[in-house]
Amino acid sequence: MGPGPSNPYPEATEAFTRPMLGHLDPVFLELLDETCDRLRQVWGTENELTLPVSGTGSAGMEAAFVNLVGPGDAVVVGVNGLFGERMCDVAARCGAEVVRVDEPWGQPLIAQHLIEAHPNPKLIAAVHAETSTGVRNDIAAIGALLAEADPQGAAGQRPLLLADCVTSLGGIPVEVDQWGVDVAYAGTQKCLGVAPGLAPFTMNDRATQRRVERPQSWYLDLGMIAQYATTHGARKYHHTAPVAMIISLHAGLGALLDEGIDHAHRRHAECGELLQDGLQAMGLELFAAEGSRLPELTTVWVPDGADDQKVRATLLERYDIEIGGGVGAFAGRVWRIGCMGHTARVANVTLLLAALSEVLGR
Amino acid sequence: MGPGPSNPYPEATEAFTRPMLGHLDPVFLELLDETCDRLRQVWGTENELTLPVSGTGSAGMEAAFVNLVGPGDAVVVGVNGLFGERMCDVAARCGAEVVRVDEPWGQPLIAQHLIEAHPNPKLIAAVHAETSTGVRNDIAAIGALLAEADPQGAAGQRPLLLADCVTSLGGIPVEVDQWGVDVAYAGTQKCLGVAPGLAPFTMNDRATQRRVERPQSWYLDLGMIAQYATTHGARKYHHTAPVAMIISLHAGLGALLDEGIDHAHRRHAECGELLQDGLQAMGLELFAAEGSRLPELTTVWVPDGADDQKVRATLLERYDIEIGGGVGAFAGRVWRIGCMGHTARVANVTLLLAALSEVLGR
Repeated sequence: MGPGPSNPYPEATEAFTRPMLGHLDPVFLELLDETCDRLRQVWGTENELTLPVSGTGSAGMEAAFVNLVGPGDAVVVGVNGLFGERMCDVAARCGAEVVRVDEPWGQPLIAQHLIEAHPNPKLIAAVHAETSTGVRNDIAAIGALLAEADPQGAAGQRPLLLADCVTSLGGIPVEVDQWGVDVAYAGTQKCLGVAPGLAPFTMNDRATQRRVERPQSWYLDLGMIAQYATTHGARKYHHTAPVAMIISLHAGLGALLDEGIDHAHRRHAECGELLQDGLQAMGLELFAAEGSRLPELTTVWVPDGADDQKVRATLLERYDIEIGGGVGAFAGRVWRIGCMGHTARVANVTLLLAALSEVLGR
Repeated sequence: MGPGPSNPYPEATEAFTRPMLGHLDPVFLELLDETCDRLRQVWGTENELTLPVSGTGSAGMEAAFVNLVGPGDAVVVGVNGLFGERMCDVAARCGAEVVRVDEPWGQPLIAQHLIEAHPNPKLIAAVHAETSTGVRNDIAAIGALLAEADPQGAAGQRPLLLADCVTSLGGIPVEVDQWGVDVAYAGTQKCLGVAPGLAPFTMNDRATQRRVERPQSWYLDLGMIAQYATTHGARKYHHTAPVAMIISLHAGLGALLDEGIDHAHRRHAECGELLQDGLQAMGLELFAAEGSRLPELTTVWVPDGADDQKVRATLLERYDIEIGGGVGAFAGRVWRIGCMGHTARVANVTLLLAALSEVLGR
C-alpha cells in the first residue's frame, strides 16, 4: 500500500512462468498486438502509436519529451509536485525553453494558468495523478480550453497536450481522445496491477506529425520503435522487447478488462473513500485539497507525536504492510498510502486502518 | 536457439512468482545489493558503480554514451556488425565526433587500427561479441595497447575503453578490471539466462571522474541512479526499480554462480564446438572468421537451394526451435544460432542438428 509498486494481479504474475518467446516469434507478436489493443481500450484512444515503452514510467516521460521537444521549443509545465518538477528537468535536458507554472503542493493545477503562461508553446504538460501529493489535476479542463482556443487544431500549431498518467491509468477515468490529449504515458506498477518495468504509451497523429526527426535518445526513438512494435510497422528489429514483462502486462490488462474498466474505477473509488473517511475518523488530517483527492493515492499528515519512520517500520514488520513517506519538503511530515490495482480491495483498507489504529493508539 | 532471448534458468523464472516488494523495502534493497555483488563477480570487477540499468541491453549502450560523451568529444568506434553501427548512431546523438573503424562483417576488429584512428579520443568503443555476425572481438588486446601507451592512465587523459558485452557476459570470459575496460554493459537475455529487460552495467572510477555532468538523458543519469542503487548512495528515489526483473536476475545470477562461472564458460564452449562441428559435418559453411568464432552465437551460410524463411518456420512449427535470420546485407543469407544461458545444453545442440538435417535433407 505504498505509492507503487502495488500487488500485481495474480494473472500478471502467472504469465511470468510461461515459456520464453523470441521477440520476433509470431506468437509473441500476436500477444504484443493484443497488448497494444488492450492498452488502447484502457487509454480510451484509437491512436495507432500505442505501445509499452521498454522502461519504467520515467522512461515513458523521457520518451514523450525527447520525441516532441528540441532545442528552443517552448514547453509549459504544470508543477505541483515531484513529477511536475521532473518534467521540467527532462524537458530542459532536451534543450527546451521551460515555462513553469507552479501551484502549491497539495493544490491542483489551474488550467487557465497553463494556457496563459506562453503565447505559443509547442507543448503543455501536466501530471494527471501527482504521486507525490495525492492530487488529481484536471487534464480534461486543459484539453477543453485548448480546443476552445483553436477548434480546428489540425492546423498543427495548437500546443500539444501531454498527460502523465503513471498513477491514474486503470484507477481513475482516463480518456485520451475525448479529452484532446496528444501524448500520454503511464506505468505498469500502479493501478494497472503489473510489476514495474514498462511504460504504456500513446501518441496521436497530430503529435506524431510534429515529432523531432532524430531524437537525442536512440533507445526511445519512437519512429524506430514503431517500425517494430505496431502492426503497420515492418516488424523491423530495434531493441529486444522485454518479452516476459510484456506478456505479464498482457495478462494484467486482461484481468482488468475482464473485470471491466468502469468496475475497476468504482473499486478504486470505493477503497479511496473508505480509507480517507477512516483516516479522518481516526482524527488524522488529509494533505491533498478537498475535491482534488485521488482515490488510489491518499496523502495524510503524520500526526503530532508520531514517529514517521517508526510507524512505517512497524506497519511493515508487524503487519507486512508498506506505506510510503512524504517527498521533498514533506519528507517525514506526510504519509502516502496507495490503493492501486490488485491492492485496491476493501479488506486491505480495513486491515490498514486497524493496524494504523493499533500502532498510533487511536 | 535464436540470437536471444535464450531460455531462462528455471531459478530466474521461479523468482518472478514471489510476492512483490517495494523498491525501498529493506528486503528488496538487500536483494539489489546482492545482485550488484553477483554482477561484480560475473564482470570480474570491483567497480562500485555496478548495477542493472532499467532497460534492455540497448539502454545499457545508451547509458554508457550519454554519461561519458558530450558535444565535440571524439569517439572511436569499431564497426564490424550491427551493434558497432548502433554505437555510432548513439554516440552521434550525443553530439560526439564519431571516428569509425570498419572491418568487414564476419572478420574481427584489429586493436591497432582502433588505437591509431584518432590521436586523443575520449572513448574507444568495441563490441565484444557481435550478435549480428557471431564474431568475437579481442577486447583484452585493445586494453593492453592502451595500457602500454600510457601505463599511468590515472592522469585521466588515457582514452576510456568501452566494451559492449551484451552477448558475451556469462558465456565467454569477461574480465573488466584485468583487461582495463572502463565501462561495459550487457543484457540479461543472452548468456545470463534471464528474461530481457535489464542491462547489467559497470563503470570504474576513472570513467566516473570524467562523466558528463548533466547527461541529456534524465532516465539514464548514472549520477542520480547511483544515489539510489549503490550501497554508498543515500537510497534516494530516482525511478521505480523494475523489482520483479531484478529479483529474477538475482536468481539467475545465483544459478550461474552456483554452477561456477568457469563451468558455465566451458559449457558454452562445448556446445558451440559441437554445433559448429556438426554444421560443418552437414556440409554447411560457417560465416564468422575461423579463430574469432563465438561459441554462444554461431553464424552459418544458408546453403544453396534452401529457403531461409521456410527452414526457420519449419524448425519453429515442427520442432519448437527458434533460430535467427541474418541482418543487414546478410538478411536471408545467413542463420544465427544461439547457445546461450540455460539453452546451452548438449541435448539442445543434438536436437537442432538432427532437426536441421531432416529439414534440409542432409
